[in-house]
Formats: sequence, C-alpha cells, structure tokens
Amino acid sequence: MNAEHATARQPYTSPLGDERSARFTRWLTRTQMSVRDHVGEFVRDRCRAELDPRGFSLPGQLMLEFASGGKGVRSVFVYLGWLCGGTGESEPALRAAASAELLHAFALLQDDVMDESPLRRGRPSTHRRLAAWHRDRGLSGSSDRFGESAAILLADLFLVWAERMLRESGVGAAALERAWPRYDAMRSELAVGQLADLTNDAALVPTVDAVLDIARRKSGNYTVRRPLELGAAMAGCDDTVMTLLGEYGEAIGEAFQLRDDLLGVFGDPATTGKPLGDDIRERKATTVIALADQLAGPTDRARLRALWAAESIDDRGVALAQTVIADSGARQHAEQMIQARVEQAHRSLDSADLDSSVADALRRMALLCTHRRH
Amino acid sequence: MNAEHATARQPYTSPLGDERSARFTRWLTRTQMSVRDHVGEFVRDRCRAELDPRGFSLPGQLMLEFASGGKGVRSVFVYLGWLCGGTGESEPALRAAASAELLHAFALLQDDVMDESPLRRGRPSTHRRLAAWHRDRGLSGSSDRFGESAAILLADLFLVWAERMLRESGVGAAALERAWPRYDAMRSELAVGQLADLTNDAALVPTVDAVLDIARRKSGNYTVRRPLELGAAMAGCDDTVMTLLGEYGEAIGEAFQLRDDLLGVFGDPATTGKPLGDDIRERKATTVIALADQLAGPTDRARLRALWAAESIDDRGVALAQTVIADSGARQHAEQMIQARVEQAHRSLDSADLDSSVADALRRMALLCTHRRH
Repeated sequence: MNAEHATARQPYTSPLGDERSARFTRWLTRTQMSVRDHVGEFVRDRCRAELDPRGFSLPGQLMLEFASGGKGVRSVFVYLGWLCGGTGESEPALRAAASAELLHAFALLQDDVMDESPLRRGRPSTHRRLAAWHRDRGLSGSSDRFGESAAILLADLFLVWAERMLRESGVGAAALERAWPRYDAMRSELAVGQLADLTNDAALVPTVDAVLDIARRKSGNYTVRRPLELGAAMAGCDDTVMTLLGEYGEAIGEAFQLRDDLLGVFGDPATTGKPLGDDIRERKATTVIALADQLAGPTDRARLRALWAAESIDDRGVALAQTVIADSGARQHAEQMIQARVEQAHRSLDSADLDSSVADALRRMALLCTHRRH
Repeated sequence: MNAEHATARQPYTSPLGDERSARFTRWLTRTQMSVRDHVGEFVRDRCRAELDPRGFSLPGQLMLEFASGGKGVRSVFVYLGWLCGGTGESEPALRAAASAELLHAFALLQDDVMDESPLRRGRPSTHRRLAAWHRDRGLSGSSDRFGESAAILLADLFLVWAERMLRESGVGAAALERAWPRYDAMRSELAVGQLADLTNDAALVPTVDAVLDIARRKSGNYTVRRPLELGAAMAGCDDTVMTLLGEYGEAIGEAFQLRDDLLGVFGDPATTGKPLGDDIRERKATTVIALADQLAGPTDRARLRALWAAESIDDRGVALAQTVIADSGARQHAEQMIQARVEQAHRSLDSADLDSSVADALRRMALLCTHRRH
C-alpha cells in the first residue's frame, strides 16, 4: 500500500523544465489529488451503504484500494475536455471526471480475470486476493473460481457506481444530457474492443494494422479520446473543438498504447509492477510484436513465430523474444511512431482556438502519456 | 428456437377461470408481446450499431435470442408499478419497463458462467455456445475460457444497454429522476446478493433463515419488489402505495423463490429446461434443502449432509436426495409457506386504494408467479 501510494501520488516527470512546466505540474498534482479524494469519498460512502451492512469488509477494502491506486490519466483528460469549454475550473466537473477512475477500475478488474493476471500494480491481483481469502477460510469449492467470480461482481459494482458518480456529480441536467450518448458509446466500445481482443488472441503473430486497429478502438479511444470528448460534451463545446480533440485524442491514444506495448516487452518490473516481458509470456497481440514480425529477417521471424505457436513461453523464451524484437528494429520503429503521433497532436493544437493554459496542459499531457516508465 | 418461443409466448395459465381472468390474460399476453417487441427492436438497433460493424454476428444473435427469450415477469411488474400511479397505459413506460429484460439477461449470463451451467431454457448456455464457436474455428487457447470471458462481455453490454434503454424510453426527466436511486440500488443489490450467494455456497447444508435472507435480498427483491417499486417511483406514487407494494413484493418475491427452489429439486426438465434435480447436483443453498435438513429425522439428515459434503453428486445421489427431501415433509412445508405469502400479499392489496383492475392484475400475478411449472 505504501509503495503503491508513493508511486501513484508522484506526478509524471515533465520533460520540459521552465516556469510554465512548474505551473502545470502543480495543477496536475492538485487535480490528481482531488480526483483521488473524490473517488475515495464516493467509494467509502457506497461501501458503507452497500457492503458493510452485509459484513463484506474485504471486498470494500479491495475496491477502495483499487479505485484510488491509479494515476488518474482518464479523469485528467475528462477534466481537460471540460476546461476546453472555457467556463473554468469546477468542483462538480472534477467529480464527474473522477468517475472515470471507477469505469477504469471496472475494466481492469475484468481484464485481470480474463487474462489470468497474477499481479496488478506490483501486488497480487484482486481475484487472487479474493481466492486467498476463500482458501484461508477453508470454504468448499474451488478458491480460484470463487476469486474470479467475486472479482467480476466487484467489477459490476464499479460499472454501476461509475455511472452513478457521474450522474450525481452535480454538473447539471443539460451537461449530463450531452454526456450520456458519448458515455454509453464509450462503455460499449470498451466491451466490444475487449471481445475483439479475445478473438484475436490466437497463436499467430498478428499484423501491425490489425493490432493498431484494436489499440485505437480499445485502449487508445478509451484512455484519451473518449474521456476528452466526454468532458468537452459536458461543457457544450462546438464541433470544431470536438473534431480537434478527436484528432489529438486518437493520435495520443495510439501513442499511449505504443508506449504500453514497449513497456510490456522491455519495461522494468520495478516501475511497471508487472513481471518482466509480461506481454511476451502472455503472447499478447501488441504493436511491438507485430512490428518485429514485419521487420525481422526470415530466421528471426521464424523463431518468433515458433515461440508464439508453442504451448507456453518460459524465461529463456522471453529473453529470446526480447533479443529478436530489439534486433529487428521494432523498438526504434515504435519510438518513431510515438514521436510522429505526438507531433501530429501538437500540430492539431496549434490550429485550435483554445485557452492557452489548456492547450499547454494538453501538450504536456501528450508528452507525459508517451514518455513514461510505468 | 421454435420450442423456446412457443413456451415463451404462451402466458401463464391462470388458475382462475372467469371473465376478469380472460381479460387479464389478454392484457398480460399483449403486455408480454409488447415487451418482447421493444426489447427486440432495441437490441437489434444496438447490434447494428455496435456489433455488426465489427463482424460480430454470433454475439448479436445470441444476445437477441437471450433478451427476448424470457417470460417478461420483471417488466410486467415494473409496468404494474407504473400503472399504480393511475395515469394509465403508456408506451414510453412500457419501453422503460421492458429494459428490465436486459438487466435480467445481464444477471442470467453472469450467473450461468459463475455456476458453470451447461443449459439455459433447454439449450446450451451462452458461454457454452461461444466456447463451441471458438473450438469450431480452431482458435488457440482454451475454448471454455474464451466462452466464459466472451459471455461476461456480452453481460456487460446488457448491463449498459439496460440502463440506456430506460434512459431513452421517453418517460421524461422527472420520472427518470425518481427512478435512478432505486435503479442503482437494485443493481448494486443484485451484485452484492450474488456475492453473498458465492460465499454461502459451502459444503454445509444451510439454515432456513440464512437461505430465506438470501432469497429475499437477491432473487425475491429483484424479481418482484424492486421492479414494482421502480415502476411506481417513475409514476410518482406516494409513500402509502410504496409501502404496500413493498409488502406485496417482498411476500411474492419470497414465494417466487420458494417455487423456484421446489422446481430446482422436483421440476420436470421438459418444462424447466434445466437438468433433473439441478439444484441438488450443484448443491445450491436453497430453502427446500434447508427445510429438509431442518425437518428430517437424524438418519435422513445425516444422509443429506453426507451427500452435500461429497466431492460430487451423481444420478443416484440426486434420487436419494429427492426421496429424503420428499419424506421430510419439506415439500408440503414449502407449499404452505408459498400459500401463506400469497395470502399475505392479497391482504396487503385489500387495504390499498388502487385502481381495481390494477389490484386484480397484481392478485393474479401473485398466483401466476407462485403456481408455475417453469
């Protein structure tokens, strides 16, 4: 808990070092802390009302930890979308934005069950901890099965609570009316994207286009573009701003996912909180793997494909795959793709008529999301 | 599909045979068909917008079948709650009521995964059909795992769509404003109730009180009481009507669950669509099992408990349990409990100042829910 909080509370380190940067960092830290406070307050209230009376202390504790353990990227983007409307800072809008953490918690809990992930943020994943609870009590039946089912139910609660937190945020009926169609679309897209991911998780190394398509629709849209659009819709932004945010969001969403994919292959477990080479071990269909398959010579490509087709990948296999991927040039290629997307997003902002401090914050968020170590 | 539709379209057979009964039956059939139409239209639209463009034809087809395959009990209760408001029949209210089928579809899909149920309504359950699709395509990884994960994602879509259908039903902002707190409470109660069920699914035969508590909070509340209250809240009913519907709903919800539990032990697979003695095989914590444990003599009780503590229960075990349960008098006792609850619900209605045709419909629904064969 302590180590996790220390990581979570520390904002991204901005690569720009001037006075504006310091101002942005203060704003971001304050916003992230407010998001965490709002989420904590809401989840504690709901636990008190819905879980405590039934004697469920562990589920509530896990939910509180989980919901407030993130970096709040999605909430920050919802709030930046809101600020594009020009009506200035607003506590209700911040509360509405913070509800994105609960939606994200829903998605992560379910993903971890479906991927059978043992770890999340460097600790045993929620279904594992629920399974351990079942085992410790000596309850009958499969503890693993219990852990997975219970985690799915906590995810359900997160999904319901997320929408409730948004509805009860106080942003007003007109803002909500504008938000719902986008909110519904985002939630459906999330489930449908995950479904596409599951049907794609084959023994074959995927193509770059197929993977980028998933990345765009699933993680990218849902991390940057949809949150931004949701906030902007709440604020009543016009079509010009919506289009611009859509372009920015799509580019940075893809770059965010490319960074995630690089971290999944080369990331340091000490900062990612995930095992070394996790995406290789799980044979995830990621951009970096697809790029390596495209760029590698025939021998290395054959090696990579053989690994993917094997029953399982051990530590030696992970090391081999890392070498093949690095030698193929996929790493630099992915870095170039990230760079190109950041530049494109910055160009989109140049053409826009946004409040200068909001545009500045969006520029800096683009860098933070794409130059990070976890 | 044909057999299922034939069953589903046929309304409950009312045990009362006069002119009012015929009128009620016509009303119920019409309402059930409208519910089915609204659900079908909504789900088809959503599939066209969200699933078809991604090439997901099977998931959409399964969702359409699933959502329109039920008897519409919950929707009918929401609509009866609405009619208690005295403003008469309303197509938007009926559409709002029909959204309850999508919420129910969400719950059933998830339950079937968690219970590892092979069948639903006499056909392979959704996760099984999705697993078969995966297997037929020769995709890599565990087909069973894929089927379960995909079914959970379709359940997510149902949960999101249910709320959207209610929000877009056209009942108006004030009605929705009154409905949301109850809607949220119902959804949370559903997840928390299922969590309680999982922690209770032990090798020990449960006590009657514990099981009735779960029955009340989970299935009962969610089948009768909460739907009625939701509809009544939409219609703006006063506290007197709310209290009365709460009493009626609690009594009939419990009786509904008691009937379900009897069918789970003694039901005919031809009408239930579930394997014979399904609840015994799965060692479910049901009222009927708990009653048998309470009422049986020492020898029979020991037999029952030994069965429950065993690794698995085969056909002989099911037959033995059925005999023990029947001999214990649990069956008659459960029938008496059902009868007492129906009478209590009828008494609650006597004291109320409701439109006579609505009160009559509630009386008849009480009988239909508690005297059914599937």
